[in-house]
Amino acid sequence: MVKRQLEIIKIGGKLINDNEHMHLFLEQVAAIQGDVIIVHGGGRKATELSALLGIPTQMIDGRRITDMETLEVAVMVYAGIINKQIVAFLQRLGVDAIGLSGADGNLIQAHKREVQSIDYGYVGDIDYINEELIQRLLDMGLVPTVCAISHDRDGQLLNTNADTIAAQLAITMSTRYQVSLKFCFEYPGVLYDISQPQHTMSTIQETELQDLQSSGAIHTGMLPKLVNGMRALHGGVSQVTICGIDNLHTLVGATQLSIG
Amino acid sequence: MVKRQLEIIKIGGKLINDNEHMHLFLEQVAAIQGDVIIVHGGGRKATELSALLGIPTQMIDGRRITDMETLEVAVMVYAGIINKQIVAFLQRLGVDAIGLSGADGNLIQAHKREVQSIDYGYVGDIDYINEELIQRLLDMGLVPTVCAISHDRDGQLLNTNADTIAAQLAITMSTRYQVSLKFCFEYPGVLYDISQPQHTMSTIQETELQDLQSSGAIHTGMLPKLVNGMRALHGGVSQVTICGIDNLHTLVGATQLSIG
Repeated sequence: MVKRQLEIIKIGGKLINDNEHMHLFLEQVAAIQGDVIIVHGGGRKATELSALLGIPTQMIDGRRITDMETLEVAVMVYAGIINKQIVAFLQRLGVDAIGLSGADGNLIQAHKREVQSIDYGYVGDIDYINEELIQRLLDMGLVPTVCAISHDRDGQLLNTNADTIAAQLAITMSTRYQVSLKFCFEYPGVLYDISQPQHTMSTIQETELQDLQSSGAIHTGMLPKLVNGMRALHGGVSQVTICGIDNLHTLVGATQLSIG
Repeated sequence: MVKRQLEIIKIGGKLINDNEHMHLFLEQVAAIQGDVIIVHGGGRKATELSALLGIPTQMIDGRRITDMETLEVAVMVYAGIINKQIVAFLQRLGVDAIGLSGADGNLIQAHKREVQSIDYGYVGDIDYINEELIQRLLDMGLVPTVCAISHDRDGQLLNTNADTIAAQLAITMSTRYQVSLKFCFEYPGVLYDISQPQHTMSTIQETELQDLQSSGAIHTGMLPKLVNGMRALHGGVSQVTICGIDNLHTLVGATQLSIG
């Protein structure tokens, strides 16, 4: 039996910060035929709101620590304003979006990351995705629009990387669907050089990953997408692409990931 | 055919401000057999967050004006932190709650209130409730947990009174269900006198409403519940009760509304 197609689209940082770009992006999403899931983080807005509220941003080794106040801000921004603005705009475009955090319908169950050398705070590592719920929502013609918040099913909300959620959703749904996972950001694909934004890598092989990383050719924000993308391909996802708004459909200039 | 039972429970102001009371309340909700919908506002937290962010609270004739900044705060608090904390705690109790704003799945469509003598800003008056969506979610064993945010299906989120949402949901679902609507707050029922919190009215007749109002016997915050409650009874809802946490099941000391 030929599996149905499912597109899982992660929308990244800078696209979320700018309403105009966000709307252009969502218009492209609205043009997709068939089943779609959207995953988003919160961009700069969580940092900005924390600053306004005088909550200090704690970074250790370049990674953000999620204390209780930072978690509350993340929930307000990701599950609150960003998620609902995306859903309301999609509804305007005739797309029947439904916004979800990982707590809703027990969609994404996680556990608080164990403290080793660093205590990341209220950060969740995913244990379980509620595949049945996603299937039912898709069958109802809905577009699940998932923010980067999970829960531990013991009453605690947790912050979880949106790239990781997108990859895990893609892997989980790949038993039922032919899944294409797209990480969308502000460039058409992965750049060789930030000063040449039209010059993109057409393919990244898993074997190249370590070299690209150690040579510093890849921006730090790109690494989670590449690592999660390769993991998704190993997990049964058919296609993983890093692309922008303009080439979401054509994939001209987009970067395909490959595990060889 | 005997209609199935549906309980619609609105949780009010001060219960939401206090985690301990909220948890006690949700434990009572978790003990309900059968179909349940929860509706909540945001209590004091939206006002507190606005104050922290330096957003002035504009009141005209004792009613709050929702400008764009106030709306964003309402969405962050109602659809964000409060909704997700309720859902996460219910999940802990084994209740499969799913948090929703009115934009999600086009659950509650509204229009921005027309400007007459007062411009209330981004406040929505309800036009449509997506009965089919609610039915499907209930049939999936989910507990819809609805916050006080609607949308206009043209991309605009709107602030909508939670008592009004609860009543409108109750009326809409009463074609399919025998609906009991409960407005839960910090007292066991409507008080004659705030200094005697155990002395509650057992019934309020619609014919008494105007007298109670003009005599000042009813606290201003109670009026929307009473008016919406009477409207719900006229609209086909079987039972409307104002109660507290401890008597949610027994209804001892609760106030029943009656249209005679």
